[in-house]
Amino acid sequence: MRAVDIITKKRDKEQLTAEEIDFFVRGFTNGEIPDYQASAFAMAVLLNGMTNRETTDLTLSMAHSGQVLDLSKVVDIAVDKHSSGGVGDKTSIAVLPIVAACGLRAGKMSGRGLGFSGGTLDKLESIPGYRVDLTTDEFLEQLKEKGIVLTGQTLDLAPADGKMYALRDVTGTVPSMPLIASSIMCKKIAAGAQAIVLDVKVGLGAFMETLEEGRELAHLMVDIGRLAGRETVALLSDMNQPLGSAVGNSLEMIEAIETLHGRGPADFVEHCLHVAAHVLVLGRRAKDLKEGRALAEKSISDGSALEKLRLLVSAQGGDFSFVDDTSKFERAKFIEAVKAPRSGFVSQVNARTVGEASVALGAGRAKKGDPIDHAVGFLVFKKVGDSVRADEALCEIHASDGGKLKDAREAILSAYRYSDESVPPLPLFYE
Amino acid sequence: MRAVDIITKKRDKEQLTAEEIDFFVRGFTNGEIPDYQASAFAMAVLLNGMTNRETTDLTLSMAHSGQVLDLSKVVDIAVDKHSSGGVGDKTSIAVLPIVAACGLRAGKMSGRGLGFSGGTLDKLESIPGYRVDLTTDEFLEQLKEKGIVLTGQTLDLAPADGKMYALRDVTGTVPSMPLIASSIMCKKIAAGAQAIVLDVKVGLGAFMETLEEGRELAHLMVDIGRLAGRETVALLSDMNQPLGSAVGNSLEMIEAIETLHGRGPADFVEHCLHVAAHVLVLGRRAKDLKEGRALAEKSISDGSALEKLRLLVSAQGGDFSFVDDTSKFERAKFIEAVKAPRSGFVSQVNARTVGEASVALGAGRAKKGDPIDHAVGFLVFKKVGDSVRADEALCEIHASDGGKLKDAREAILSAYRYSDESVPPLPLFYE
Repeated sequence: MRAVDIITKKRDKEQLTAEEIDFFVRGFTNGEIPDYQASAFAMAVLLNGMTNRETTDLTLSMAHSGQVLDLSKVVDIAVDKHSSGGVGDKTSIAVLPIVAACGLRAGKMSGRGLGFSGGTLDKLESIPGYRVDLTTDEFLEQLKEKGIVLTGQTLDLAPADGKMYALRDVTGTVPSMPLIASSIMCKKIAAGAQAIVLDVKVGLGAFMETLEEGRELAHLMVDIGRLAGRETVALLSDMNQPLGSAVGNSLEMIEAIETLHGRGPADFVEHCLHVAAHVLVLGRRAKDLKEGRALAEKSISDGSALEKLRLLVSAQGGDFSFVDDTSKFERAKFIEAVKAPRSGFVSQVNARTVGEASVALGAGRAKKGDPIDHAVGFLVFKKVGDSVRADEALCEIHASDGGKLKDAREAILSAYRYSDESVPPLPLFYE
Repeated sequence: MRAVDIITKKRDKEQLTAEEIDFFVRGFTNGEIPDYQASAFAMAVLLNGMTNRETTDLTLSMAHSGQVLDLSKVVDIAVDKHSSGGVGDKTSIAVLPIVAACGLRAGKMSGRGLGFSGGTLDKLESIPGYRVDLTTDEFLEQLKEKGIVLTGQTLDLAPADGKMYALRDVTGTVPSMPLIASSIMCKKIAAGAQAIVLDVKVGLGAFMETLEEGRELAHLMVDIGRLAGRETVALLSDMNQPLGSAVGNSLEMIEAIETLHGRGPADFVEHCLHVAAHVLVLGRRAKDLKEGRALAEKSISDGSALEKLRLLVSAQGGDFSFVDDTSKFERAKFIEAVKAPRSGFVSQVNARTVGEASVALGAGRAKKGDPIDHAVGFLVFKKVGDSVRADEALCEIHASDGGKLKDAREAILSAYRYSDESVPPLPLFYE
């Protein structure tokens, strides 16, 4: 078998066999197949596509390019949850303690933010001491002992994917459905997931801007899950406006904690309950979504979810007093309200604009490895459908550098649109 | 400007500007743009195509990636001739002396054989001492003093093309019309051509197997020539069966010499006269093809073309006595006739099969840098349209290794097809 023949086959729109895909992934991982062949292959896949069978084979080969976690000795059913990324998406931080409180051992490996989209690890690190670099053994040990883990991906998990993603990023081969779907799913499978809840974000602040694209990605990942023998559910959720109110690391961490205290913003609470219900059903802790939702609500009202978050934070070396007293979080030096320029109804809060403005404040990274400022970001008070009076606060800017307030204010003002007539709120989920 | 944005633009089927293409070619040549970006770019070009304007810009950028010869002080009009490669194609070796004898200074840089297709340099080297590695200064000096040069391409000519071709070869990006056409044309332009006669081969033994592909490539190269300000003529010639009788280095060299002695095979003589006539018209040595052809015929009958070949061989260090006495050429140890298994009319002599069989005998290379055997090859006596009796010799095998005779015989027998009815000869040229 030769790499060039596999590239040629995909170039000519032929279907690759599992053996050919595995040969390519193995060779690329161990360096026998050079980057210049892998990038030509990626471009051929992007332009000519892959069948769901090929995409599944690619997923499985990438999942097996490194260590594959075996969670069967630690949990009876390993359910993972994945969000395709967005603005203000702190769902995992609230959902993991909820499902753990409902009796499901919950271990998850998350990522960092890149571009306008935030990352769970960055948010967690706003609690002093919180470690996101657990080893595989520490991960397994904590999952067994404490029933909850939330850390970064270990280096030896799906190394082909990390190498491939770095290459795609500089060769114009990121926006390919088979490559995106296999990249997501291979990490879930390598992390030991037996069942997966996918939260595919759709809208201005998501990687999938249209419902059609989101639906296509969702169907593809569900198909990969089915073909790979993993029970998979995909939700399509709105990301035209930020989720909840907080955008920025400490602010989002506080909002997740407040949610477990029973004081979260309505849309974010609803979002978490819906995702948690799906996780509980797949994890056989609830017979249907209604029961799952009731269990999730109870875990908030009885304080058991909050207790699981305390347990998580202290197990990973964090200062768990932050969970009880969110005033301990570092606050930005400059806090300024952005006021509505007119009265009316909010018809848009462009999530992407808000996400990019938060990066400009220092909450995110323009490129991998950039330092971030945990304290900065926004609290978004007015969302689509809300009525607003002129001079009422739309949003609050949290900045460390007073010189950045003006640009942030202008960005927020440009993110908002208004209508004279009442506007229905955006749906939380589609379909 | 960033390489990834240029790749992305081509991926999205947009048209690139001359500046973008030049940025990419320059960056690739000097190593700032890595191979993995160039191969993704090549795949995007292969799958999404390029306009003729883009292809011309690519050609000019590659031509200017190294030294561009200025022949204006040496010749009044620099006419180059290019063949897209085939089996038994020794045209340049006969045509260059013909046009030089007609008063046109003729300097040409040729290539080596690869795969089933032979190369002019390998054929020339069957004359002991013949140098194909002239420097640029030697090239210019000889062209000025002797009026005829036939050597290899200098290293500093279109380095982007050499680098790109090596990459395309291992990334499945060879068969792209814009990339093939620009690769051919950039070398002609870098070698100083002001006018170009292209001999595009079509058929079983050519890189373009169908007339449609050949026509597309021919039109594209003529368009590039026009847009680049080079008068360009493209001929479409048949390469379903070998050209002339000889296939193999010494054998072809002998046939080219015999042709200038006035004893060449009819089809090859006709081919050379037609190509030479076009070169003479573009070089302003003949007012039309009829006059060009008459001049070419006269240069053979009066011995002036042969005299130019002697001059060429001795100028480049070769033993010119080989031109007068072809029995001096090294002969293969085993010479064996292949006899017709039946009577009838020849309906096919598969050029590719013959070319591959000659490589198997040692006349060509499976990969770059392989050594070759100058003496081996075939003399093809029966061509399409010829009548043949059972047991009459179809072809003669020249082998250095007796153990290879059997395979060669079987290959030749499989290359031939017969008909009971008379078969028209193949055209030499299409359109």
